[in-house]
Amino acid sequence: MATAKAHTNIALVKYWGKKDQQLIIPQTNSLSLTLDEFYTTTRVNFDPGLTADQVTINHKLLSPAAARRTSAFLELVRQRSGRQQFARVDSINHVPTAAGLASSASAFAALAGAASAAAGLSLDRRELSRLARRGSGSATRSIFGGLVEWHRGHDDSTSFAEPIMEKLDFGLEMLAIMINTKKKKVTSRQGMQASVTTSPYYASWREVVAADMQAMKDAINRRDIPAIGHIAEENALRMHALTLSADPGYTYFSSATLTAIQAVRALRENGVGCYFTMDAGPNVKVIYDRQDRDQVISGLTQTFDRDQLVVSPAGPGIQIWNENNNQSLL
Amino acid sequence: MATAKAHTNIALVKYWGKKDQQLIIPQTNSLSLTLDEFYTTTRVNFDPGLTADQVTINHKLLSPAAARRTSAFLELVRQRSGRQQFARVDSINHVPTAAGLASSASAFAALAGAASAAAGLSLDRRELSRLARRGSGSATRSIFGGLVEWHRGHDDSTSFAEPIMEKLDFGLEMLAIMINTKKKKVTSRQGMQASVTTSPYYASWREVVAADMQAMKDAINRRDIPAIGHIAEENALRMHALTLSADPGYTYFSSATLTAIQAVRALRENGVGCYFTMDAGPNVKVIYDRQDRDQVISGLTQTFDRDQLVVSPAGPGIQIWNENNNQSLL
Repeated sequence: MATAKAHTNIALVKYWGKKDQQLIIPQTNSLSLTLDEFYTTTRVNFDPGLTADQVTINHKLLSPAAARRTSAFLELVRQRSGRQQFARVDSINHVPTAAGLASSASAFAALAGAASAAAGLSLDRRELSRLARRGSGSATRSIFGGLVEWHRGHDDSTSFAEPIMEKLDFGLEMLAIMINTKKKKVTSRQGMQASVTTSPYYASWREVVAADMQAMKDAINRRDIPAIGHIAEENALRMHALTLSADPGYTYFSSATLTAIQAVRALRENGVGCYFTMDAGPNVKVIYDRQDRDQVISGLTQTFDRDQLVVSPAGPGIQIWNENNNQSLL
Repeated sequence: MATAKAHTNIALVKYWGKKDQQLIIPQTNSLSLTLDEFYTTTRVNFDPGLTADQVTINHKLLSPAAARRTSAFLELVRQRSGRQQFARVDSINHVPTAAGLASSASAFAALAGAASAAAGLSLDRRELSRLARRGSGSATRSIFGGLVEWHRGHDDSTSFAEPIMEKLDFGLEMLAIMINTKKKKVTSRQGMQASVTTSPYYASWREVVAADMQAMKDAINRRDIPAIGHIAEENALRMHALTLSADPGYTYFSSATLTAIQAVRALRENGVGCYFTMDAGPNVKVIYDRQDRDQVISGLTQTFDRDQLVVSPAGPGIQIWNENNNQSLL
């Protein structure tokens, strides 16, 4: 039996499109910030008494159909470890599910950590990152804390994440504006695939990401939060332009998303250094220097309720332990 | 003295970007439908008693600063005709100004017609189209009725519009959802220039338009309204993706725009053949077969007030006349 805790991450240079659907090899590199406030804790126990995998999320048992993606992932662990038993998986999600807050990132990172340890595999963090990737692309990055790069690679062994700065030595912070925690219509998996296959702008997106990755790493080296924010904002909008330009075109924006964008820009025009990014959902995340946190919050509460705003500093990488003896397994 | 009446047009394949700012040579061809319901009537009188151009719009005298663009246009007419007098220009706009309903298209087409006739120039419609182009790109197309193509050309003499089908022999119709008639923040002139110079997707947009022009003309030949609507919808979204992907990124969408898009798509999913397009403003125009008009209206009034919906069949080309003797001048 093993338990793992993994945090979500929000990409500053987005992952949007796979090259290999099966192995989840992305079209481009990407770069993210792991968040302290949002995480998943998952316990896995391979149990010879079970006749099927049994998965609970937030104490609720999933139907076999709903657990299919989890079981497919567990199957990878069984194949690699030689374990034949089914598993009991109990997962607590401290992330609003499927609203663009990357719950699958923390979920599959935690599952990779707990399942591999419970199966007796002893994986290092790079191997864990590759394993998490098979569950959900963005989970690749959630193995590490702080600022993380996912190298797209070209096959299973070369596509993994690596920390750029695990413990931040400057004030980069994020705030999530919780707009809508309902399930989204177009999953990110469907959405990115539609962009790859039907957007006439997809080839240029690859070049956008290559340039943004370099510029973002330079900005991080300089601890230049305005540059980090500007690059992240543009990169997010260019990702969302891929959804508009797909066939059929669609958008993850809701009216509250537009309102949030305007609020962040208005604050910035008033001298408060803040920037936005959005993923495959209506929620908006705000990027700023923690020394400006009070100004950002007081500005945003002109438009949003205080309890819609969740501040998160950078978070740590995955932790894995044995609950019986509280011994760390990584 | 001469008076002209010109109708707005809504592009089904958009014009978004100039190659030559001065001469208004566009980056791509475009294709539009002239609308019967929205038009501008303009009377021009060159008057030796004036010491400056005097311009009224909807009976309101413009300041010299506000009339600058009109005066610059009149200057072209004076140069070409040899007329030295200033002009009195009285314009009535039956179009909500600057809300993406292309009031500058009908305005500069009517001004081109009335000013050139008042100055004694006898221009044919192609020459009028080239002249109108100098005032506002989309005015190039408003010289003609029905379905119109603007050939981008490569200089002043080769960049003009031409009718594809002046009198429609099938049921293509448009309905404007009047969302917001306030002035927009980013003019289309600023917006398209920002897209040309800063969107990484602009080069691909040129290819999108080339393909869409061909597909649209084929669909028109087949009188295939679903295909016309689908191409127009995708083309519009891909134009709006250029605004998102500019630096800084921006959008003309308001929350009501998103609502209108959803309403049109919901109707379509319920079997009513309707499609949307949007220009540089929040308003949404709906494309459908006039035999489905009642269904479209009854569907949209679930979301919008009936008086926000303005139906327009295809409209005619420019008319120019002498008000004194009611004699046609074109």
